[in-house]
Amino acid sequence: MLVGIGPGSTDHMTARARAAIAEADTIIGYVTYIKLVADLIEGKEIIRKSMTEELDRAIESLARAREGKKVALISSGDAGVYGMAGPTFEVLFQAGWTPPAFDGHGVVEPGGIEVEIVPGASAINSCAARVGAPLTHDFCAISLSDLLTPWPTIARRLDAAALADFVVALYNPKSGRRTRQIEEAQRLFLRHRSPDTPVAIVKSAYRRRERIEFATLATMCEADIGMLSTVLIGNSNTIVRHGLMVTPRGYANKYDVEGGGTTLAGERPGRSLSTGLNGWLENLQLDHAAGESIETLARRHRLPADYIRDTLAQPLAAEAVATTEEEA
Amino acid sequence: MLVGIGPGSTDHMTARARAAIAEADTIIGYVTYIKLVADLIEGKEIIRKSMTEELDRAIESLARAREGKKVALISSGDAGVYGMAGPTFEVLFQAGWTPPAFDGHGVVEPGGIEVEIVPGASAINSCAARVGAPLTHDFCAISLSDLLTPWPTIARRLDAAALADFVVALYNPKSGRRTRQIEEAQRLFLRHRSPDTPVAIVKSAYRRRERIEFATLATMCEADIGMLSTVLIGNSNTIVRHGLMVTPRGYANKYDVEGGGTTLAGERPGRSLSTGLNGWLENLQLDHAAGESIETLARRHRLPADYIRDTLAQPLAAEAVATTEEEA
Repeated sequence: MLVGIGPGSTDHMTARARAAIAEADTIIGYVTYIKLVADLIEGKEIIRKSMTEELDRAIESLARAREGKKVALISSGDAGVYGMAGPTFEVLFQAGWTPPAFDGHGVVEPGGIEVEIVPGASAINSCAARVGAPLTHDFCAISLSDLLTPWPTIARRLDAAALADFVVALYNPKSGRRTRQIEEAQRLFLRHRSPDTPVAIVKSAYRRRERIEFATLATMCEADIGMLSTVLIGNSNTIVRHGLMVTPRGYANKYDVEGGGTTLAGERPGRSLSTGLNGWLENLQLDHAAGESIETLARRHRLPADYIRDTLAQPLAAEAVATTEEEA
Repeated sequence: MLVGIGPGSTDHMTARARAAIAEADTIIGYVTYIKLVADLIEGKEIIRKSMTEELDRAIESLARAREGKKVALISSGDAGVYGMAGPTFEVLFQAGWTPPAFDGHGVVEPGGIEVEIVPGASAINSCAARVGAPLTHDFCAISLSDLLTPWPTIARRLDAAALADFVVALYNPKSGRRTRQIEEAQRLFLRHRSPDTPVAIVKSAYRRRERIEFATLATMCEADIGMLSTVLIGNSNTIVRHGLMVTPRGYANKYDVEGGGTTLAGERPGRSLSTGLNGWLENLQLDHAAGESIETLARRHRLPADYIRDTLAQPLAAEAVATTEEEA
């Protein structure tokens, strides 16, 4: 059982995570995470590993499972997000493991080792909850650790996320040795984003030593950032008000939010924006027919010229008819 | 209380989410989410809203809170990820609300309306848990709904995420009316990614009608995709094996994973890769000194030329000395 324990306080652990730990014969995890669940593991076999021993944790888990033990491998946050789920499947595949045959109703062939992943709130979810509503819409998670990832890969992702105006959560932003990565991230962001972009640095969310600091893209490197910090960088609409970081969801594109909530001219509640896909496609055809070049249109919409060209070559489809309830 | 109830089975709800619902006088939410917590809300005031009434839910919550009611506003997944936290703060700010003064120890000034966000596992976490370990590393969440977001904004994010090789979760991929958005997403991805890229379509994870389907970037649009689906698109390293979608974490960059796990030549356990930031900076300086142009280096590393130029202009810093335990 790959158990995501959430931010670290038992309050924010799921019932299934708690039950998985209770069912387990053996608990394996990084020492710090083991401490977070100390009151749930009395009387069990405990295997504490250091931070560098991720593959060891997975190998040890497989060995115990082969002995017939029920193993809970603990991750903080979500086991699937920079957690133990990935390394464990890598080790399992490498060891020739195959999942036990399921009959489609959850019945497992005897003898096989079954793997269950117990999801939890990742740092991005818990840190966001502590500062307001910074995500609310499209976001990226990027780890600044270059211990397993080449720097150009990380830099390309930072550049892309900054350019496309994602809200970004930086995991592993800084450590004793890795101090320059966060400065490089800042430099890459400043090529596309305003220095005033709100930034929140959240350390140990929901734990005893929780610390929240607000900064801007220009000042973020002066903040206290460490191995237990997550850095949240807003998008171009993100605001900080009354000590809360909030990214508006886009209601102002459709409603007169300041003036009583009436629908703006040309917009319809429950329907795509006039600048949504269908409206945009129509206007693109009209603008092109009126003589605007593909290059002009590509620059205006900040999209690749070949995408604009291919789009113009496709017929306009009539809007589909709704068959079920639609969204806001 | 803005309560993220997780994927929808009470097993995967946190203790705090359960307690918040138990404490509440009034429960407000989309009808489907109210059904998911039906067994926890007997005897309470229940306000069911339709999917299009997000702002109404927030306005109603504020009105009840002003009457002195303790309100639980329910979101599926995480309240902060395409959930009710964003719209609620927008409504609160609009109504002139300010957070009650805290004395730093959680004591609230009498009379103020206090807001608590209860984080939960978002669809990205729960869907990932059901298909293997597709995230494990850098990822993006992108909503294909154009009801509040102009299409060029969505298209730019799809293009950037595809180019920078993120694992991507598409929220709101398709509805009765919005059928072409997913095809456009596919087209934007195919400009940068292999048609064989693994894709998983997860519907109603952990709920009664859960359905998981694997596809590729080339075939994804033939899958059964609807309002309750999340579409997970792998990165260039993602594999599907034995019915599990897994994105390797990068151990193969440092260790001889196939041949017993020894460290590769030039690499050190617990330290940055030789192609990590410091190693990359050194090599960049050497290559440039050997006569390679900024343009050649930019093309090789697929990074903007001005970033390469600025990087070359900066002095090389000595590697910082670790002060605390480092990561893997």
